[in-house]
Amino acid sequence: MATAHRTEHDFLGEREISNDCYYGVQTLRALENFPITGIPISSVPELIWSLAQVKKAAALANMELGVLPNGIAAAIVAACDEIIAGKLHDQFPVDVIQGGAGTSTNMNANEVIANRAIEILGHKKGEYKYCHPNNHVNCSQSTNDAYPSAFRIALHQKLSCLISCMQYLQKSFAAKGTEFSDVLKMGRTQLQDAVPMSLGQEFSAYATTIGEDIERVREAQKLVLEINMGATAIGTGINSPPEYTRIVTEHLRTLTGIPVVTSANLIEATWDTGAYVQISAVLKRVAVKICKICNDLRLLSSGPRCGLNEINLPPLQPGSSIMPGKVNPVMPEVVNQITYAVIGADLTVTLAAENGQLELNVMEPVIGYSLFNSVSMLCNGFHVLADKCIDGITANKEHCRAMVLNSIGIVTALNPIIGYENSAAVAREALASGRSVYDLVLEKKLMDKALLDEVLSTENLMHPRFIAGGKA
Amino acid sequence: MATAHRTEHDFLGEREISNDCYYGVQTLRALENFPITGIPISSVPELIWSLAQVKKAAALANMELGVLPNGIAAAIVAACDEIIAGKLHDQFPVDVIQGGAGTSTNMNANEVIANRAIEILGHKKGEYKYCHPNNHVNCSQSTNDAYPSAFRIALHQKLSCLISCMQYLQKSFAAKGTEFSDVLKMGRTQLQDAVPMSLGQEFSAYATTIGEDIERVREAQKLVLEINMGATAIGTGINSPPEYTRIVTEHLRTLTGIPVVTSANLIEATWDTGAYVQISAVLKRVAVKICKICNDLRLLSSGPRCGLNEINLPPLQPGSSIMPGKVNPVMPEVVNQITYAVIGADLTVTLAAENGQLELNVMEPVIGYSLFNSVSMLCNGFHVLADKCIDGITANKEHCRAMVLNSIGIVTALNPIIGYENSAAVAREALASGRSVYDLVLEKKLMDKALLDEVLSTENLMHPRFIAGGKA
Amino acid sequence: MATAHRTEHDFLGEREISNDCYYGVQTLRALENFPITGIPISSVPELIWSLAQVKKAAALANMELGVLPNGIAAAIVAACDEIIAGKLHDQFPVDVIQGGAGTSTNMNANEVIANRAIEILGHKKGEYKYCHPNNHVNCSQSTNDAYPSAFRIALHQKLSCLISCMQYLQKSFAAKGTEFSDVLKMGRTQLQDAVPMSLGQEFSAYATTIGEDIERVREAQKLVLEINMGATAIGTGINSPPEYTRIVTEHLRTLTGIPVVTSANLIEATWDTGAYVQISAVLKRVAVKICKICNDLRLLSSGPRCGLNEINLPPLQPGSSIMPGKVNPVMPEVVNQITYAVIGADLTVTLAAENGQLELNVMEPVIGYSLFNSVSMLCNGFHVLADKCIDGITANKEHCRAMVLNSIGIVTALNPIIGYENSAAVAREALASGRSVYDLVLEKKLMDKALLDEVLSTENLMHPRFIAGGKA
Amino acid sequence: MATAHRTEHDFLGEREISNDCYYGVQTLRALENFPITGIPISSVPELIWSLAQVKKAAALANMELGVLPNGIAAAIVAACDEIIAGKLHDQFPVDVIQGGAGTSTNMNANEVIANRAIEILGHKKGEYKYCHPNNHVNCSQSTNDAYPSAFRIALHQKLSCLISCMQYLQKSFAAKGTEFSDVLKMGRTQLQDAVPMSLGQEFSAYATTIGEDIERVREAQKLVLEINMGATAIGTGINSPPEYTRIVTEHLRTLTGIPVVTSANLIEATWDTGAYVQISAVLKRVAVKICKICNDLRLLSSGPRCGLNEINLPPLQPGSSIMPGKVNPVMPEVVNQITYAVIGADLTVTLAAENGQLELNVMEPVIGYSLFNSVSMLCNGFHVLADKCIDGITANKEHCRAMVLNSIGIVTALNPIIGYENSAAVAREALASGRSVYDLVLEKKLMDKALLDEVLSTENLMHPRFIAGGKA
Repeated sequence: MATAHRTEHDFLGEREISNDCYYGVQTLRALENFPITGIPISSVPELIWSLAQVKKAAALANMELGVLPNGIAAAIVAACDEIIAGKLHDQFPVDVIQGGAGTSTNMNANEVIANRAIEILGHKKGEYKYCHPNNHVNCSQSTNDAYPSAFRIALHQKLSCLISCMQYLQKSFAAKGTEFSDVLKMGRTQLQDAVPMSLGQEFSAYATTIGEDIERVREAQKLVLEINMGATAIGTGINSPPEYTRIVTEHLRTLTGIPVVTSANLIEATWDTGAYVQISAVLKRVAVKICKICNDLRLLSSGPRCGLNEINLPPLQPGSSIMPGKVNPVMPEVVNQITYAVIGADLTVTLAAENGQLELNVMEPVIGYSLFNSVSMLCNGFHVLADKCIDGITANKEHCRAMVLNSIGIVTALNPIIGYENSAAVAREALASGRSVYDLVLEKKLMDKALLDEVLSTENLMHPRFIAGGKA
Repeated sequence: MATAHRTEHDFLGEREISNDCYYGVQTLRALENFPITGIPISSVPELIWSLAQVKKAAALANMELGVLPNGIAAAIVAACDEIIAGKLHDQFPVDVIQGGAGTSTNMNANEVIANRAIEILGHKKGEYKYCHPNNHVNCSQSTNDAYPSAFRIALHQKLSCLISCMQYLQKSFAAKGTEFSDVLKMGRTQLQDAVPMSLGQEFSAYATTIGEDIERVREAQKLVLEINMGATAIGTGINSPPEYTRIVTEHLRTLTGIPVVTSANLIEATWDTGAYVQISAVLKRVAVKICKICNDLRLLSSGPRCGLNEINLPPLQPGSSIMPGKVNPVMPEVVNQITYAVIGADLTVTLAAENGQLELNVMEPVIGYSLFNSVSMLCNGFHVLADKCIDGITANKEHCRAMVLNSIGIVTALNPIIGYENSAAVAREALASGRSVYDLVLEKKLMDKALLDEVLSTENLMHPRFIAGGKA
Repeated sequence: MATAHRTEHDFLGEREISNDCYYGVQTLRALENFPITGIPISSVPELIWSLAQVKKAAALANMELGVLPNGIAAAIVAACDEIIAGKLHDQFPVDVIQGGAGTSTNMNANEVIANRAIEILGHKKGEYKYCHPNNHVNCSQSTNDAYPSAFRIALHQKLSCLISCMQYLQKSFAAKGTEFSDVLKMGRTQLQDAVPMSLGQEFSAYATTIGEDIERVREAQKLVLEINMGATAIGTGINSPPEYTRIVTEHLRTLTGIPVVTSANLIEATWDTGAYVQISAVLKRVAVKICKICNDLRLLSSGPRCGLNEINLPPLQPGSSIMPGKVNPVMPEVVNQITYAVIGADLTVTLAAENGQLELNVMEPVIGYSLFNSVSMLCNGFHVLADKCIDGITANKEHCRAMVLNSIGIVTALNPIIGYENSAAVAREALASGRSVYDLVLEKKLMDKALLDEVLSTENLMHPRFIAGGKA
Repeated sequence: MATAHRTEHDFLGEREISNDCYYGVQTLRALENFPITGIPISSVPELIWSLAQVKKAAALANMELGVLPNGIAAAIVAACDEIIAGKLHDQFPVDVIQGGAGTSTNMNANEVIANRAIEILGHKKGEYKYCHPNNHVNCSQSTNDAYPSAFRIALHQKLSCLISCMQYLQKSFAAKGTEFSDVLKMGRTQLQDAVPMSLGQEFSAYATTIGEDIERVREAQKLVLEINMGATAIGTGINSPPEYTRIVTEHLRTLTGIPVVTSANLIEATWDTGAYVQISAVLKRVAVKICKICNDLRLLSSGPRCGLNEINLPPLQPGSSIMPGKVNPVMPEVVNQITYAVIGADLTVTLAAENGQLELNVMEPVIGYSLFNSVSMLCNGFHVLADKCIDGITANKEHCRAMVLNSIGIVTALNPIIGYENSAAVAREALASGRSVYDLVLEKKLMDKALLDEVLSTENLMHPRFIAGGKA
């Protein structure tokens, strides 16, 4: 059916495009040029939303400055509003990994918005004299300012989501910290029995550490508030009208509610990817921390009979196709794997950032792909980890307590009273004979029973007071 | 409609499952537990194919050994054959990143095959007494041998694809090596003018280096020929019948045409991820090499007026939303980005491999995800790079030649004749005065014109003979 | 000579130690156990200084709290003062990479200080009843608080040095930014000619980006102000007297002039390595940025005849053993290599941080080694880069300008006047014919000469005004 | 004393050099230009040895080909022989990290050899007319072939050392594999109790895995047998006489005993760093494997009372400055840290390799530094790990056995007899009640005692036979 297609051209020639498509010839070429991951940019709705906000803000600024006729500007704004509302996202099919420094993504947006605006103006898709992707939608912009600005706004949003997820998980750990505050257990350093503590202290520390990471994410998030709208091609602002930079940035602030500002040096801002390196590094930090926590959870729940067996993770699925009744710590395991992917993605970001050249870093698409992916996986992982694992953890309180009392590590608490030498002697005899520290100290009359009981009371072991004196 | 669902149970309780689904309760739980990437394992068809081959081989072996009734075995084989033929792949929805060391993937396969076998036997999905996912489909297996064996076979296949793509790209470079064999150009070391060569030599070297990488991929590919079928849970072979290991492996060899063998030490084979580390490292090597080549292509085509401008890459899409006529090297750029993703994925594999513990490495799913992804992206990138870029490269022959003759670097060729000291003096004067080496040598009567012309002939500059003598 | 040795013992037995040595039996065992890099901890003088400050602060606090006799405390303080003044550093020979979570480093300090204190008290080395490494020097401490606290203070100092070096280099770039402010040159995106700018803008952007990195270093530096003195073994503060934490931290603040504070959660602080991950990541960011700059410098100075040849780096050494007169960009090259080492070290830190377990991260020594190394190399590199390269850079002003005027990229500036379509047509014709944009625009009467000259004036090309109107 | 110095010059001017120094002006400049790590190239004696072998082979070839007078060649050979014998290594002070693609290292060698040859010829250092660093010692060479050839030969040697160390460690693991072959223990997957095995199987698997790694090192080692002597500046062989390539390579083979060959494509060989990437990756693989093993050792020896406590590592040093009697797994800990450094160094190598450009990779010095460092640390670590840890490991045989018999995991062995459903029921009841599988099976009359005892015999648990039948 001939009417189902329209003909578009660019300086490489003519191409037929289905009339269903709001995107045009440049998007079509990008689809053919970059069949890399099969994942379209629409897989990150925040990015599509941000692109539309950037284009809307530019249209408003251009209209105010008189470089875009009011009618065209209004149609562009209306088209952008539809995309902001969630429509037309399926018209953004270009691959997340693409050459050209984001030009294909930017042109995809320019073409979709132009064609929708043309329809709003009462014409047919492809009649670009009514609204042109480059001349009108992209007016006063270059890919090199519009694309990174949209990317940054989208990233800001994703990071806000991440912070919420981190707070959600933090709350789960904090609740367990309170719940387990009276569970006496052995603290371990270098996997060797050290000195006692409470299980609550262990879980509270997890909540604390996530809280610190939230602060780091917040700091890093601020870095993407700097955008370079008005820089155009390389930061000199060529072809953008005076006052445009200020006005478009103000519009973006108002439209998105995100307090974006203009970079102090637009030349630098156009090639600099430092903010992404920093954000990626903070994601790596978050990954490293939660990785350690998940490793701990798997250690503490090891067993049930031949491991530490201090805590029980809620069973979520049969753990083995051959071993009946086996239940595995699948939730920490999946989060561990997410962290390896995030740390790997940080390297990808690093490599891409390092390979910018002169006035631009052309590798931003893979930076975007990596960062968005990492944030999404972390968010997903944190949610299921909280819901399906942390919240259901129970403690084997008696087993934990028995291990402490049977341990040699409690001898450290006697140090200030009986001295390091005596303590070491008791420790060595206990280890060799298999006997308990408690019995040996009494037998050797190193302390009287009342004082020994006081020092080795649960409360004192979890929250040691300084009890000096004796034979030190 | 009540009949649209069936009820399944496992030791965690009962669940309703749509009767459309061939998968069962354990797959359902995995879907709920692991909403991580949104990418199902069916995105790697080779893996689904391999899982079916493994299950088929096991059924045949179990039948021969009398541990599985012929009728059930035949039904399992028939179900596997359908999957091998490409059917039912949409029934493999579990996430590529999952906890549980692949148990969910293995159980997804066991459940789909069991339910399809049950239908083949004339019963309804869920009537597991006719064919049970664990007792029958998984018979003589554990996730810990069935899953990695399938993974390895799939990986072997993907690497064969990669080798084909590399050969395809190599051929493109080799053709250009021949085509450009008479294009004299300046060779550069440390980005400084060095000594002349031909552009053909440069492109032939790219073909050579890809050839070496193909050899490395082939070597690494051999490592996944070692599988551990028969190891069951931890390599002791518990619950697998005598001779099973030999027979199932033979079947797998025959069915897949891939010469798999049994690992010498099944305990080690069950936790060892060395093969993946090696393969990932070779992918990284391939990435590093092609990255360098793409960087070169971008350098050599820089310009058109203010760069090296030695070659022209075919224009593929308008390069700028603001700069008219600009064409960018989008194909090398996208391949560069792929290489950063591959190098990042290698780190992910490394981290996952490093974190195996005791008798198993539970992190194999993220290893698989990373490796499959890397191979796919490299294959896709190599194809478009060859088709859309290398094959269409043209040389600016006159410009290349003019740069050589105007260069100071040709003075090195005079070294054996006029000596290092004289050469250096000519070089310095040429640099300071802007004059040519040729004129200065004649003016200073350091060589006669005939010999100078011979030494500086195109042929001698590209393929230098040793011309001694003179004033050295 | 028998008197040249003394005998020391620990619970593993007796050992002879040279009387020249201030260190004792535990240091000796560490020397034997860890012959790894051959690099002693004394290679980081800041660490030795910090260890002495920590031990001094602890002695003062213990004296105040009455848990250490005044005489012993005074001797410890005196011994520490000598080390702070730079003495006895050769007595710290344990390897920078060591097992035991820093215990060997801590005991090395305890032993040297004890033996020097013993001498100060008028006795002989090894007479530990007068001053004991564990009971007195290490009083109220554990390796797990004393060592990381010292490490953090040392790191804080090293980062202050780094900031100075960065400011030094920044100043060099800023000076060139001013010097080159009137050098018109072609800006390049994706290595393709884009639009004009000044060379000064390029160098100013380098200064700006280093300034931003300095801010990031400062932020990260604050993270190591949190120390955990008083945490002792695992953060419960076992065996440290009440008020000790507050008092020792105050002393450390006063002694070092660094505003250290006590971590809010000492359990978490004892195992958390987040601050190191963050600092390492910021070093990586600094490396990535300077790497990009050095890549640019090598590109811009490529040539002299067959490259971009926009700037000249000062010649520092003959560049080739075979090519006369060749001079290479050795300074950017060495800094590039430093950045690869720093980025690699960041991965080492990441791995070490990820592998903490339960109440402690035992991998801190390799974290320290990596961070100290990275900071030192960056400092060294920045200094020589500024002194021997940046300060001596000269511009090839005429060549830069000629390239701009000969370029097609200037057509972008005509866009708002003659329109994108006309611009693209001129660009294509210029490329095909080899003619200049200037001539073609006049020939086609697209603009009059006066306006064209105004638009293409040096000033307007470097700092474009928005000149609308005409045929757009 | 004026006579203590001589004056040398290069094209940058004159410099005074101490007459003690065999190196000359170019080395002096390198010392000033590259104060980066403070580590001289002489820290790798293999590299100095290889440089001398390369220079000797070149002198012999040049003499045979008549391009070097016999007397000068003989003196060069004699000077090289002294260096090969271990003399003059202190005359190689240039920093391991340097700009200039190894030119400084090559010139350091050229200058030292020239000055020593001059002395041998009866003249004074600096009288280069008798033997010139460039014209004579470097004759027919460029840094770009001499340096990487020497680097490769040195690397080949270092890898041979590594293989020896790996074999040494492998033997220790194998011996323990035999010694512990009758120690029944619980196998664990995902840190959960799985099925029984012997401790000997666990240690034998470690020996096996190291054996596989040795094979990988051997394969990778072969890659550096390809050298590019005769390539000179960029691989075209400019200024090297015909037959030189063949003859010099033959000499090198004879002199070093290492079967080096000439690369097939000298253009490619001059910029390709694939061999280093591969070797580095194999070192990473070795690191990943030993890292996992050390993690296991720390897990298995965790305790002594509150951990797995299956094995005891020999105590090497007091483990705590506060906890009496604590002994830590310092040897695995230090090896773990080495592996993080090696994995980090692999990233450094990757980055350096990726950043080669056109005809050369200028980043080889940092590649060399990283690889030599990694090999040295691994060798050192493997030696102390074997000697001070593995060889002294003892097993807690009774504890291991008791855990197995008390475990629920043994239920898997009953699967083929009583069926998965019955097994799962027993497992669940055992877990809930704390009772033993053995008692429950008898109580429920699922098996008779004789058969149960047979199935649960130590021998059958460690090396399970397939015992079918019963109620499955």
